[in-house]
Amino acid sequence: MLIVMHHTATDEQIRAITEAVEAMGLTAEPIPGSQRTAIGVLGNQGYVDDATIRDMPGVREVIHVSKPYKLVSRDFHPKPSLVEAGGVTFGDGQPPVVIAGPCSIESEEQMVAAARLVKASGARMLRGGAFKPRTGPHSFQGLGAEGLKYLRSAGDEVGLPVITEVMRIEQLDTVCKHADVLQIGARNMQNFDLLKEAGKTMHPVLLKRGMSATIEEFLSAAEYLLAEGNPRIILCERGIRTFERATRNTLDLSVVPLIREMSHLPIIVDPSHATGRRNLVTPMAKAALVVGAHGIMVEVHPDPDRALCDGAQSLTGNDFDELMTDLRSIQELFGGTL
Amino acid sequence: MLIVMHHTATDEQIRAITEAVEAMGLTAEPIPGSQRTAIGVLGNQGYVDDATIRDMPGVREVIHVSKPYKLVSRDFHPKPSLVEAGGVTFGDGQPPVVIAGPCSIESEEQMVAAARLVKASGARMLRGGAFKPRTGPHSFQGLGAEGLKYLRSAGDEVGLPVITEVMRIEQLDTVCKHADVLQIGARNMQNFDLLKEAGKTMHPVLLKRGMSATIEEFLSAAEYLLAEGNPRIILCERGIRTFERATRNTLDLSVVPLIREMSHLPIIVDPSHATGRRNLVTPMAKAALVVGAHGIMVEVHPDPDRALCDGAQSLTGNDFDELMTDLRSIQELFGGTL
Amino acid sequence: MLIVMHHTATDEQIRAITEAVEAMGLTAEPIPGSQRTAIGVLGNQGYVDDATIRDMPGVREVIHVSKPYKLVSRDFHPKPSLVEAGGVTFGDGQPPVVIAGPCSIESEEQMVAAARLVKASGARMLRGGAFKPRTGPHSFQGLGAEGLKYLRSAGDEVGLPVITEVMRIEQLDTVCKHADVLQIGARNMQNFDLLKEAGKTMHPVLLKRGMSATIEEFLSAAEYLLAEGNPRIILCERGIRTFERATRNTLDLSVVPLIREMSHLPIIVDPSHATGRRNLVTPMAKAALVVGAHGIMVEVHPDPDRALCDGAQSLTGNDFDELMTDLRSIQELFGGTL
Amino acid sequence: MLIVMHHTATDEQIRAITEAVEAMGLTAEPIPGSQRTAIGVLGNQGYVDDATIRDMPGVREVIHVSKPYKLVSRDFHPKPSLVEAGGVTFGDGQPPVVIAGPCSIESEEQMVAAARLVKASGARMLRGGAFKPRTGPHSFQGLGAEGLKYLRSAGDEVGLPVITEVMRIEQLDTVCKHADVLQIGARNMQNFDLLKEAGKTMHPVLLKRGMSATIEEFLSAAEYLLAEGNPRIILCERGIRTFERATRNTLDLSVVPLIREMSHLPIIVDPSHATGRRNLVTPMAKAALVVGAHGIMVEVHPDPDRALCDGAQSLTGNDFDELMTDLRSIQELFGGTL
Repeated sequence: MLIVMHHTATDEQIRAITEAVEAMGLTAEPIPGSQRTAIGVLGNQGYVDDATIRDMPGVREVIHVSKPYKLVSRDFHPKPSLVEAGGVTFGDGQPPVVIAGPCSIESEEQMVAAARLVKASGARMLRGGAFKPRTGPHSFQGLGAEGLKYLRSAGDEVGLPVITEVMRIEQLDTVCKHADVLQIGARNMQNFDLLKEAGKTMHPVLLKRGMSATIEEFLSAAEYLLAEGNPRIILCERGIRTFERATRNTLDLSVVPLIREMSHLPIIVDPSHATGRRNLVTPMAKAALVVGAHGIMVEVHPDPDRALCDGAQSLTGNDFDELMTDLRSIQELFGGTL
Repeated sequence: MLIVMHHTATDEQIRAITEAVEAMGLTAEPIPGSQRTAIGVLGNQGYVDDATIRDMPGVREVIHVSKPYKLVSRDFHPKPSLVEAGGVTFGDGQPPVVIAGPCSIESEEQMVAAARLVKASGARMLRGGAFKPRTGPHSFQGLGAEGLKYLRSAGDEVGLPVITEVMRIEQLDTVCKHADVLQIGARNMQNFDLLKEAGKTMHPVLLKRGMSATIEEFLSAAEYLLAEGNPRIILCERGIRTFERATRNTLDLSVVPLIREMSHLPIIVDPSHATGRRNLVTPMAKAALVVGAHGIMVEVHPDPDRALCDGAQSLTGNDFDELMTDLRSIQELFGGTL
Repeated sequence: MLIVMHHTATDEQIRAITEAVEAMGLTAEPIPGSQRTAIGVLGNQGYVDDATIRDMPGVREVIHVSKPYKLVSRDFHPKPSLVEAGGVTFGDGQPPVVIAGPCSIESEEQMVAAARLVKASGARMLRGGAFKPRTGPHSFQGLGAEGLKYLRSAGDEVGLPVITEVMRIEQLDTVCKHADVLQIGARNMQNFDLLKEAGKTMHPVLLKRGMSATIEEFLSAAEYLLAEGNPRIILCERGIRTFERATRNTLDLSVVPLIREMSHLPIIVDPSHATGRRNLVTPMAKAALVVGAHGIMVEVHPDPDRALCDGAQSLTGNDFDELMTDLRSIQELFGGTL
Repeated sequence: MLIVMHHTATDEQIRAITEAVEAMGLTAEPIPGSQRTAIGVLGNQGYVDDATIRDMPGVREVIHVSKPYKLVSRDFHPKPSLVEAGGVTFGDGQPPVVIAGPCSIESEEQMVAAARLVKASGARMLRGGAFKPRTGPHSFQGLGAEGLKYLRSAGDEVGLPVITEVMRIEQLDTVCKHADVLQIGARNMQNFDLLKEAGKTMHPVLLKRGMSATIEEFLSAAEYLLAEGNPRIILCERGIRTFERATRNTLDLSVVPLIREMSHLPIIVDPSHATGRRNLVTPMAKAALVVGAHGIMVEVHPDPDRALCDGAQSLTGNDFDELMTDLRSIQELFGGTL
């Protein structure tokens, strides 16, 4: 932490800061400059809460050098993690994992049809939502526990592990029973209690970036999961909210190489929710692979025009098959995860 | 709903849309234009899910005229609601309600000191956080249930109702027992399960706007609470996330008169979390009143420099007393809620 | 400037940085920490370009303590400036200046009608656009030089100084001849050549904040004007672009007290462009005064329903008169600029 | 245009709207719904200014179906345009054009070194800034006209056409004389006078997206150029401003396939300014190609650590050579522009 003083700060104010820092068990190192003094704070093992300092007289600014996360950071865990989930491995040097399936689980037939279709084209994990976060209470809210069974049996029938979103703590037991991977959605990225409890299950977790979460907040949310001792965490970029509304969100692909530098955790990309438009999903999925994503999650529906949710962003079986062909070409070109 | 066709759309495509709309039990009314045809959709009682339409051949755009909320809307509930909570009334024509207290409950002594101080200056409700949403797991997470007792007894001692944040469903019982009003924080605004369960308690709820929630999403979140039959909902603007990082968030005051037009629910403003800087809290609190807020929630700490959380944005007792004097002058000037 | 090294940085890398800093004529002060070393850079008289440092091996982050502006800063000019323009004074302790008039100059009659109306209610400067920045080329682009004459003569008739926007360097002579104050619009805030030439005119300039300009960028743009020796600069907040599209922009009122702390220049607020909706203009104008704005600029049109531009956000003469009454009450309550 | 009435609107209000629309020479078609009436506006040849309607009594919302641009739109120009500039062709089916060179022109030697280096690796156009838009006036502002000569002669020496930014109208003659393509930067995207004059030169123009420009505003800015009769316009996505500050901007790659749908103009991507970090430039450049960009513009400097501007985001010759190898592989894989 660096405390930057006003250029009018008095020696007495500087001394008061120094004492306050030392009262926190840390060391203060004043750095006099030609225009102002800054005070370096040394000795902290992690992020320092600046509340007691930031407002003392003479302080202009407090600059944090440490981050509010540590376990997720590559600084202290330099080797990239391989995360195994449902028999599939995410991480550097592994072939990218494609997760596919419908937005919502609608019926047993739909799930089986979807499962066959995505399996045939080469998906390695099946997705489907039983509990749906919907903006308003009057939209379809998902089939709930019944849906989970359809998902599980569809996965079993074609031999694919399954992933589904969990929205509340009481669902954790049931979802862990039926699904290989828990998904925590963008709207719950800072539902810290859900994170803590999901961490405790020791089940693999796919954590989506919140709609307006900075990278620092995203990694700090993952830190909640790791802090419970759960190492099997996969990050997922799914678009952020910006002023541009022509797309549902703005897919921030630069986050992929950046997070690969900052964290040892694998990161995948969901181009379906990011763009909200079928014809943008395919190019953005390919781009995700090229920038180094460890996998992709896309919505595929056997009959998108009759989907109960997000039909407009769902690929048909045919679209998906073509996408998989392209993804394989890209992967062959660059080899392993890029 | 209005379906705008591509200017190259064929008659057959237009017919297919018409049929799809009618299959939904609605009426389709084609409106031929000089350059393109649009199709009006009539007969819906509320928001129509456009998933089955948006991607049909020939469709350029689907424009929603209905909103995903109805119960919160002034359209169908033209009279503004008065919301009674803990003996205090929020709403048009009522004197604005000032809620004050520390960010976190830290100890019995601190809460009592804070309660006396805010009561003395004229606050009408006491706040304090027992369960704290913190960006990273290594920060102080609040005193939990123990803290709730300190809050309650401090409120009782000075005769003020109390409000506190609830972060997970299992806390609802305990929080309802100790607090007069439940607060749902910005990070949980789209934690739809928490909304549903909070709605069921029939306890008054203060719902904060999410960090990147549009007004439409904010009102839709409130719709979840009303849909459970709970009419005692108070909205709270607390700043949105923008590119500007010199302030913690950007306080969007224009939302106050706008929501007063769109909804019958009362709306208050939290300038502390919005700005994150003590010297901005006071002017923004006064401005909130001037634009028509039904109340204000501010952080006040008996000793901000030693606060465990958000000290830099907390007012001292003295600051708060001066603010209350100004607020009273403004209120006298304009009378009632503005 | 503080250079934060990776925790794995070698002594040699630290030495290389030290040498690079010294090659710039500055002093490097290594600050060893328990986890990593930081290097303080001392001796600079202003902002240091970090291009040569930021990418050297072992560097994790470069943190700037100095700002890219100096002349506008309160640090080195602690006394607030009073800016005189067309016989009116903007600044601390002065009564707030209300600037009013139509968005576009449409005809001689319209300008005279507008001038009488705003003068009668107490405006102290007349606005009107002769050169209009319009999103698309097919919208009305303003009357140009002809319009300037109408503005000037309308101002003269009622005895009000006038302000108008200048969009290109060649217009500066003509605009300076007819107008008392030059306005540089949000879209041109970073049209640096226009800023330089406007600075050279020594005419008072009202500089609007760019749609997505940070406070730092806004003040740096003003620095261009001051760097040419022109001290008569007035800043204007007019709303920023955010994800929220229910209002035209999001009016960031907290910028007013913040800029009053950071800069000695006066700052006013334009609630018309910020909100884009007539019924939000009035409350936001009053709030601007309460947070300490040195003035307000509002659109008033004698017949808004027939305005060629921005009719929906223009006040009628009646609206404006009521607003002025409220503004006077607020000013009396708090005295001078707040 | 669709005018949505309040559900309480009276017949008289609806009639008044109808008359106002007809006074504009257009046709009004009321569409009665179960809850409210909407009024379709027909007969317009393009975007209708809604100022006179939006605020009439009973109007809830005005929805635009036409866009404020037409010449750039694919609606009325379905065939994609090929744009020839300096002997190079941008557009569908053409090999993507790589433009490379330093941020700033610093000296004759630097430009020649850069030109040789980028030519050797396969760039097809040389870039370099003579007039630099810098946030503050105290940073290096470019070599000006002198720099243009270095750029031209470096291009001539290696046989590459050259592109450079123009910042003010008076520079147009000189820049047209020395450069094959004019660049209009992000900060000037809505400098409408510069757009008009640049349009008149009939020189090819590369137009960068403004920092917070919507796609609609971006295309409308291009419309200014086309409206002057200049058909040789190339669009360039260069990152938008969002809340995320870990990267300089957020590169919005989804805009590429989306603009290819909406407009017939070619679009390229600048990953250097978008990300601001050398190690993100390479992956994002490759991704740009994969999503269908017609070209890429990257900063390459013979000695980035000594660059006077943007060194941290400039590729070395070696980095660039590796990037070109990858780009060629991607192009071969997919053939032509993707």
